[in-house]
Amino acid sequence: MERTSSNIQELNKDDENEKRIDTDSIERIFESKKVPPWQQQLTVRAFVVSFILGILFTFIVMKLNLTTGIIPSLNVSAGLLGFFFVKTWTKFLDKSGMLKQPFTRQENTVIQTCVVASSGIAFSGGFGSYLLGMSEEIAKQSKEKNSAMNTKNPSLGWMIVFLFVVSFLGLFSVVPLRKIMVIDFKLIYPSGTATAHLINSFHTPRGAKLAKKQVKTLGKFFSFSFLWGFFQWFFTGGDNCGFASFPTLGLKAFENRFYFDFSATYVGVGMICPYLINVSLLVGTILSWGIMWPLINDKKGDWYPADLKSSDLHGLQGYRVFIAIAMILGDGLYNFIKVLGRTLFGLYHQFNQQKIQSDIPVTGNSSPDLPSISYDEQKRVRLFLKDEIPTWIAIVGYLTIAIISAATLPHIFHQLKWYYIATIYIFAPALAFCNAYGAGLTDWSLASTYGKLAIFIIGAWAGSSNGGVLAGLAACGVMMNIVSTASDLMQDFKTGYMTLSSPRSMFVSQVIGTAMGCIISPCVFWLFYKAFDNLGISGSDYPAPNALIYRNIAILGVEGFSALPDKCLTLCYIFFGFAIFVNGIRDAVGKKRASFIPIPMAMAIPFYIGGYFAIDMCVGSLILFIWSRINRAKAAAFGPAVASGLICGDGIWTLPSSILALAGVNPPICMKFLSRSTNIRVDKFLSL
Amino acid sequence: MERTSSNIQELNKDDENEKRIDTDSIERIFESKKVPPWQQQLTVRAFVVSFILGILFTFIVMKLNLTTGIIPSLNVSAGLLGFFFVKTWTKFLDKSGMLKQPFTRQENTVIQTCVVASSGIAFSGGFGSYLLGMSEEIAKQSKEKNSAMNTKNPSLGWMIVFLFVVSFLGLFSVVPLRKIMVIDFKLIYPSGTATAHLINSFHTPRGAKLAKKQVKTLGKFFSFSFLWGFFQWFFTGGDNCGFASFPTLGLKAFENRFYFDFSATYVGVGMICPYLINVSLLVGTILSWGIMWPLINDKKGDWYPADLKSSDLHGLQGYRVFIAIAMILGDGLYNFIKVLGRTLFGLYHQFNQQKIQSDIPVTGNSSPDLPSISYDEQKRVRLFLKDEIPTWIAIVGYLTIAIISAATLPHIFHQLKWYYIATIYIFAPALAFCNAYGAGLTDWSLASTYGKLAIFIIGAWAGSSNGGVLAGLAACGVMMNIVSTASDLMQDFKTGYMTLSSPRSMFVSQVIGTAMGCIISPCVFWLFYKAFDNLGISGSDYPAPNALIYRNIAILGVEGFSALPDKCLTLCYIFFGFAIFVNGIRDAVGKKRASFIPIPMAMAIPFYIGGYFAIDMCVGSLILFIWSRINRAKAAAFGPAVASGLICGDGIWTLPSSILALAGVNPPICMKFLSRSTNIRVDKFLSL
Repeated sequence: MERTSSNIQELNKDDENEKRIDTDSIERIFESKKVPPWQQQLTVRAFVVSFILGILFTFIVMKLNLTTGIIPSLNVSAGLLGFFFVKTWTKFLDKSGMLKQPFTRQENTVIQTCVVASSGIAFSGGFGSYLLGMSEEIAKQSKEKNSAMNTKNPSLGWMIVFLFVVSFLGLFSVVPLRKIMVIDFKLIYPSGTATAHLINSFHTPRGAKLAKKQVKTLGKFFSFSFLWGFFQWFFTGGDNCGFASFPTLGLKAFENRFYFDFSATYVGVGMICPYLINVSLLVGTILSWGIMWPLINDKKGDWYPADLKSSDLHGLQGYRVFIAIAMILGDGLYNFIKVLGRTLFGLYHQFNQQKIQSDIPVTGNSSPDLPSISYDEQKRVRLFLKDEIPTWIAIVGYLTIAIISAATLPHIFHQLKWYYIATIYIFAPALAFCNAYGAGLTDWSLASTYGKLAIFIIGAWAGSSNGGVLAGLAACGVMMNIVSTASDLMQDFKTGYMTLSSPRSMFVSQVIGTAMGCIISPCVFWLFYKAFDNLGISGSDYPAPNALIYRNIAILGVEGFSALPDKCLTLCYIFFGFAIFVNGIRDAVGKKRASFIPIPMAMAIPFYIGGYFAIDMCVGSLILFIWSRINRAKAAAFGPAVASGLICGDGIWTLPSSILALAGVNPPICMKFLSRSTNIRVDKFLSL
Repeated sequence: MERTSSNIQELNKDDENEKRIDTDSIERIFESKKVPPWQQQLTVRAFVVSFILGILFTFIVMKLNLTTGIIPSLNVSAGLLGFFFVKTWTKFLDKSGMLKQPFTRQENTVIQTCVVASSGIAFSGGFGSYLLGMSEEIAKQSKEKNSAMNTKNPSLGWMIVFLFVVSFLGLFSVVPLRKIMVIDFKLIYPSGTATAHLINSFHTPRGAKLAKKQVKTLGKFFSFSFLWGFFQWFFTGGDNCGFASFPTLGLKAFENRFYFDFSATYVGVGMICPYLINVSLLVGTILSWGIMWPLINDKKGDWYPADLKSSDLHGLQGYRVFIAIAMILGDGLYNFIKVLGRTLFGLYHQFNQQKIQSDIPVTGNSSPDLPSISYDEQKRVRLFLKDEIPTWIAIVGYLTIAIISAATLPHIFHQLKWYYIATIYIFAPALAFCNAYGAGLTDWSLASTYGKLAIFIIGAWAGSSNGGVLAGLAACGVMMNIVSTASDLMQDFKTGYMTLSSPRSMFVSQVIGTAMGCIISPCVFWLFYKAFDNLGISGSDYPAPNALIYRNIAILGVEGFSALPDKCLTLCYIFFGFAIFVNGIRDAVGKKRASFIPIPMAMAIPFYIGGYFAIDMCVGSLILFIWSRINRAKAAAFGPAVASGLICGDGIWTLPSSILALAGVNPPICMKFLSRSTNIRVDKFLSL
């Protein structure tokens, strides 16, 4: 039993060892600072600040939803802005002698969590994707299946109700996963870890020498990464412009999404992630973009029509997406069942022995091992488990909301039968697990992928004549809310874990944040919807490109699996099996050898995203590796600080860049990459 | 008297101090190695290798002459290849027990010098510029003044004779400058210094710890710089493509040649040059491209015709070139006269006191000061002065060749009267001084600029009807050979100084190298000329773009100064005076304050080249500055190694890149920079 859980610990071990010097010190440094009880971490000022930031971020996310459809992660910005807001406020109060409660890092984490929970709904609410995709305006553009049966125009009322009955489910499904992901699997959650480092660095007590140096290092790389983002921005004046489209390894490789894209974030993520993850990503990239897709592309005209666009799910893109999903599901399911089995076995054991054990044995290395883990981890684990949220609350909460939601939703979307909903709610926790697990390993949340899967399955089930398009889109909403929340909030739990924040205060903060989001997001959307007539019309200022894409997927979905290209389903089965097989092998060969076998979950992610971020991460890995070779102690002590600096600096840059986009300020220059022959044509054209 | 010379030493002092730790150690490390007497530095194998390399480099330079007209500096490649050739050879001999004389760094320097001297003629011989510009083919293309009077077709015979009577003059004018530039002024000669570091690093005896680290550092940055050059190459598939055209500071600044162009060479040069030089360059850039040129540009249509191309000497380019020349002449003349005065005063002093002093007092800090300079410098100065080449040899040599040449040249070019030649030979040493001085400060040789000045002046003097165009081009050849040799060989003397090579062996090597070049270069050119019919025809494979440009300048020249744009001459006078004035101030205010006053010579160089290399150098300066702040000792010990690595790596890359160009391998990608609006047009064009 121990073995099964520790193979994943194993893969983190190398990294963990190197971080020991660092993590060892963090909590010792903070030893002088008392951790306030969880009720005190939840202050009124924290929620006031969260509310304000929540509105700000919702505006930003909403605008991006409706313009480009690309939403950056705002975790870091939330943490940073929360700090500055409250710090300024407490400083002011402190000076006027009215400060009752000092500002702690736990309170900072609470704000960050609340803001993420509330602004996350602006994305998972689908205002730029599935929700808007239901409207008549979008339906008109896709020409097919736009009967009244398959459309529903937005309205403030039903949107708020929809979000309220759907958004809390993700939260309750997260609660039992929390311990498994953070403590048992020791997953990295790169963004969460980086945010935690940032928050810790803000609150580091004076006098700690190494910590001071680390904070300085973090600050340096933070500034560098921010300025780098700023510099890059100037050269992105157009599609496929700028460093993010740099064909570093040649144009041919670029076409196969194989290039280093100079993203400070993913270089940082690569430095935090264990080597095995980065290698797995690279193996996956080579397997898919290097071998499989070119081979399948040769079958063009045979396996699928040759005249399709590359982004058409009927063509190559279909293979990419569905094979990736199959592999992720295979890996996720394997681990889900493993954890479930282990938990049930543990419960059975407990009952048998009639011994009330604490939850610690579930951590894998059973209780007497505790002294072998670092001081920081001991302290964090103890605190993380002290303020327990009983699993029965999670289960009861989930079931209650599921029942309410299954009863309510068919009244909103009469095409969505209650048994569709029930089905989703049965499978959702497993998928939430998959997504949270994948995000923990690689920082990628694939919520929209799971949403598309839901469109496909429920759409096909409902069928074209029964409003399958609308049912699919609604199902997508239900699924995305659960799955997206699971990974977002798990990142926050990781941050909370590393800042000694109580899981209870985190949970309460998430509940409040989610409730805020359920009201703020629809209101902000309504504002946009009423203010701009041409919302969702392509070519306008607010084209909301994803809305049409989602609707088209739904239209494809109602045709069922037969709409998939030839051999796609067979390949899906093979890769689903492959993922389970590899996991089985990994568990069978023992810890040591498992660290040389790639993880299917990580391999699958580049399957349809492309290899560029894998290259970034490998570069990060390589930097850390070389650094460790030169000076092991220094790399261990400062590596996480450098990585966090890189991630956070780039993360914060998204804020001004979003604001620039909102203000309509466009980058002035396009850095373009043309082949020699194209360049000659362009030069001739320009000289005319 | 001491003061006058030491103001330039002063500006190098900061840098010198920092390098002390480093330079202190170099000669101590080499202490175990005997410096062979100068005759032994000149080995037969050295000249065999030089001959082979000379031919190789001549081919490369010639091809570049006839294709793009842009010639990179090959100093570093010569040093490196010389090392590998002889090292392989001696290793082979050593193994077979037949090695009589070990390979020393002095011998290495001799090879490097000989190769530079011989391949330098491929450039200064003007086969792609003034010489070819005389031919009928080129004359046909410019339409004006192409009578038989103004043309002369190339022929092997007269070209060899011409080169022989002209090329040695530069050499003899260099000899007396040698001591002034290297020891008195302590000029940097960045390329020469970098080559010396490279050669020293190759020959470092085993066991020296710091030296080993330095060599490692040099090697690391050498590889980095080389790979960076290689990487950049891929993105230069077209005009204005690649990192060298990166509008780092915006498109507007780029138009004014104000950008960071990612050149490892100039970043390295900036690290070697004192801060004052870099600041002077920046001040000059801002003054010219930031203020003056935009102001003059506003007078377009008033001061000069508005419909001229930006490269036309009748327009803005005329101001740029002639104001820069005026300022350089002002500064050069001031220093030339100062040195001359000081030398005469010294001689007078010597005669008066009837005391035979060694030359050391001329070094500025008169002899008792010697202990205050570092061990390395003591040793180097002693050796540099020991194998003296008497000044009378230089003077007699110069005069003899000048007379032979004045008698011979009119037979080759009957348009070039003997008194034109005599005039050139009177002013040439002063201009050679200017060029060697400027190259010592900033690494830029402006030989072609002085050549253009000669075209202008002699052309105007001869006048259109007397074959002024041809006279001008021939005068350009005479001038360029002297001035170009002066700066090239001074770089070599600096290398020789730093590798304890005897000035005598250097001189002999230069004589032999020059003689080789006078034969190799015309032969190689003749090969190209006979092999390719369309040589010099624009649009062909060998367009030799400079040939037409030079001819056009000559055509402009015969019109005299009246052809210059309005107010240009006035501005030239002002800046000529300004340069002298600033130098006077610098001498008057004393050492300390002088280090805050920019040097006119350095200010003038960006006047027509543009500010991009000044930015590179300031970046190098900034890196060194920050490094010194963090760790002064480390920056001092490793700074020169890093800088040399950067310069040499990029320098060596020119070799494979030239070979790629010779082989017709073109870079595959163009990294292009377009404004937002242009990009929209291009995207539309490409999507058609």
